[in-house]
Amino acid sequence: MISEKMKPLVQNNSAIREMFEEGGRLKAKYGADKVFDFSLGNPNVPAPKQVKEAVIDLITNEDPVVLHGYMSNAGFEDVRQSIAESLNRRFGTSFQAKNLIMTVGAASGLNVILKTVVNPGEEVIVFAPYFLEYGSYVRNYDGKLVEISPDTSTFQPNLEEFEKKITAKTRAVIVNTPHNPTGVVYSEETIKKMAAVLEAKQKEFQSVIYLISDEPYRELAYDGVEVPYLTKYYDNTVVGYSYSKSLSLPGERIGYLVIPDEVDGSEEVITAASIANRINGSVNAPSLIQKVVGRCVDAKVNLDYYDRNRTTLYEGLKECGLECIKPQGAFYLFVKSPVEDEKAFCQAGKKYNILMVPGSSFACPGYVRLAYCVSYETIVNSLPAFRELMKEYGN
Amino acid sequence: MISEKMKPLVQNNSAIREMFEEGGRLKAKYGADKVFDFSLGNPNVPAPKQVKEAVIDLITNEDPVVLHGYMSNAGFEDVRQSIAESLNRRFGTSFQAKNLIMTVGAASGLNVILKTVVNPGEEVIVFAPYFLEYGSYVRNYDGKLVEISPDTSTFQPNLEEFEKKITAKTRAVIVNTPHNPTGVVYSEETIKKMAAVLEAKQKEFQSVIYLISDEPYRELAYDGVEVPYLTKYYDNTVVGYSYSKSLSLPGERIGYLVIPDEVDGSEEVITAASIANRINGSVNAPSLIQKVVGRCVDAKVNLDYYDRNRTTLYEGLKECGLECIKPQGAFYLFVKSPVEDEKAFCQAGKKYNILMVPGSSFACPGYVRLAYCVSYETIVNSLPAFRELMKEYGN
Repeated sequence: MISEKMKPLVQNNSAIREMFEEGGRLKAKYGADKVFDFSLGNPNVPAPKQVKEAVIDLITNEDPVVLHGYMSNAGFEDVRQSIAESLNRRFGTSFQAKNLIMTVGAASGLNVILKTVVNPGEEVIVFAPYFLEYGSYVRNYDGKLVEISPDTSTFQPNLEEFEKKITAKTRAVIVNTPHNPTGVVYSEETIKKMAAVLEAKQKEFQSVIYLISDEPYRELAYDGVEVPYLTKYYDNTVVGYSYSKSLSLPGERIGYLVIPDEVDGSEEVITAASIANRINGSVNAPSLIQKVVGRCVDAKVNLDYYDRNRTTLYEGLKECGLECIKPQGAFYLFVKSPVEDEKAFCQAGKKYNILMVPGSSFACPGYVRLAYCVSYETIVNSLPAFRELMKEYGN
Repeated sequence: MISEKMKPLVQNNSAIREMFEEGGRLKAKYGADKVFDFSLGNPNVPAPKQVKEAVIDLITNEDPVVLHGYMSNAGFEDVRQSIAESLNRRFGTSFQAKNLIMTVGAASGLNVILKTVVNPGEEVIVFAPYFLEYGSYVRNYDGKLVEISPDTSTFQPNLEEFEKKITAKTRAVIVNTPHNPTGVVYSEETIKKMAAVLEAKQKEFQSVIYLISDEPYRELAYDGVEVPYLTKYYDNTVVGYSYSKSLSLPGERIGYLVIPDEVDGSEEVITAASIANRINGSVNAPSLIQKVVGRCVDAKVNLDYYDRNRTTLYEGLKECGLECIKPQGAFYLFVKSPVEDEKAFCQAGKKYNILMVPGSSFACPGYVRLAYCVSYETIVNSLPAFRELMKEYGN
């Protein structure tokens, strides 16, 4: 009954759904506090109080016909202006409202820009490990996903292989920093090298290659690390942003695209992306929450909470004999499985009520992802369970 | 720089944008109260007070991690349950939460179900006049739009031509009742005949043909007219609903799909549609506003306001010598142009600061659409301008 394109998606979905259901079963059986569910990137830190204040003020004082009404497909002008000014203050950029398109989260923003620029058969490059949904997004427009294998020593992108795999058909590259699932922040050196490769390849193929920067974790950075703003390093950069993590609003579906003036054919791309935002069915980003984020450009979630989780889990796992790059951003640890078959390790973890996502789900087998956006108590209480688990592997 | 598929969309967009800009220019020049802008279907009646109350209660008393958090891609279970029960009470249906998928408005809902069931080259039938964006939605999935010509005597669907144009490749039919742009409500007789045609054709071609009912105007019905609930007449019906008009929340992008158990392969279609909702980039419908509509299943906008507008404009235009079917639903009048070239009539209207949308924009030239979701004063003040305009045509 369903379309051919949907069939593999339905099939692959069941594995992930099974994990969710397993989590539910375990929690029902042992109690939620006895299950160490590191599977989901759903923020546990609440939205900052400014969100609530803005909602109440807006619903109380704004004209409901405006607050809940249609606006330009790109979003409210005043909201886009506030965000542009905030970016300019923070990153020394010079965006205007017109460079921003408010979107239904970053997932929709990525779909909008891919729909805008990708023709069937054109290639979009991603660096493993990567969020597997990128593949679905690219295939939505009949593009071809090209994977670069991981550099597991640093989890910075493997630029040698990248250079080799760029072809005349390469239309876009998706990067994600701070990075899901590794927590790595791409260094300025990495970005500069990547930009140089892209510039050279654009010349070689007389093509335009868009660098799409998926940045839901931009504000989740620790140890004072700088997260370079990519539009400053490569002209054909488009940024996809989301407030899901930075303001803990994942269910609200609010984010934006930045299409700078420096992008080739910027005006046409902006117009087309606004239309794509409409005809993909979004029409526009949700109106009330648009106004809310416009007022919360300087609000922050409690990063210290995540930071304590990060350190405690990282140190605790190391003591159990597990290996892992210490992440500088996002809220994930990407841990080397003590056995090659990391699915078996995930399976073994379940005996101790530990839920982890196999690296295969990010095109990087041999590793497991732990999302530490959980309560601190979960972290602390999980460590004895990890110790027991690791005894099975001789630790 | 943009994809081949986006190019015609950017080109066609400019005509509509020009009208918006013209409206802006006229209002700047003559004052907003001197311009009779009937071009937009943006509700002027505010959301009912229950919306505001629900927002304040939810933001004050609900756990923000739940209220703004991820949920199942299909939406919050409690919200879907409330809506299902409300539908069952009102229409004698027997839906459960699992039959509903909360979507980013009806536009996204239509995209989700089209993505779910349409293969490239398959046909989707629409009845002229129709909302032209249906064509874009169908082409998003490389489907082929098939138009049925209008029956301008009643603006009920032309079922003779419909029967002839159904082929083995027909995958879906989109209907919209109460209807944009005519305001007509499809009668039960029409629905029964249409269902019989579809049943016969499914048998003939051994195929499944989905009837997609786009229902943003369901609650906007006047004179006590009944709007039949289509799932009761034809098993393979999928309903796409939106709160844009019924609760005056067009900017919030909130609606749902109903996929009844009676639909062929219902379980598979529901699963696939939930996934389509995720991978088209929506992920889920916005969370706070989901909870709000779940609490507002019995709330209503002030229909009397639209009704007075409808009668005043209809009677007033008749007195000016214009012809029009008296609409029983939505908030549009579809008026016969006094000259064949309705674009010339729209142009002439602008001299009197009257903005109307040509019927060509709904695949039905010779008519113009007037959206009467404007202030009552605009209606009253526009009538002398219409009288002047019609003098040009010998009235």
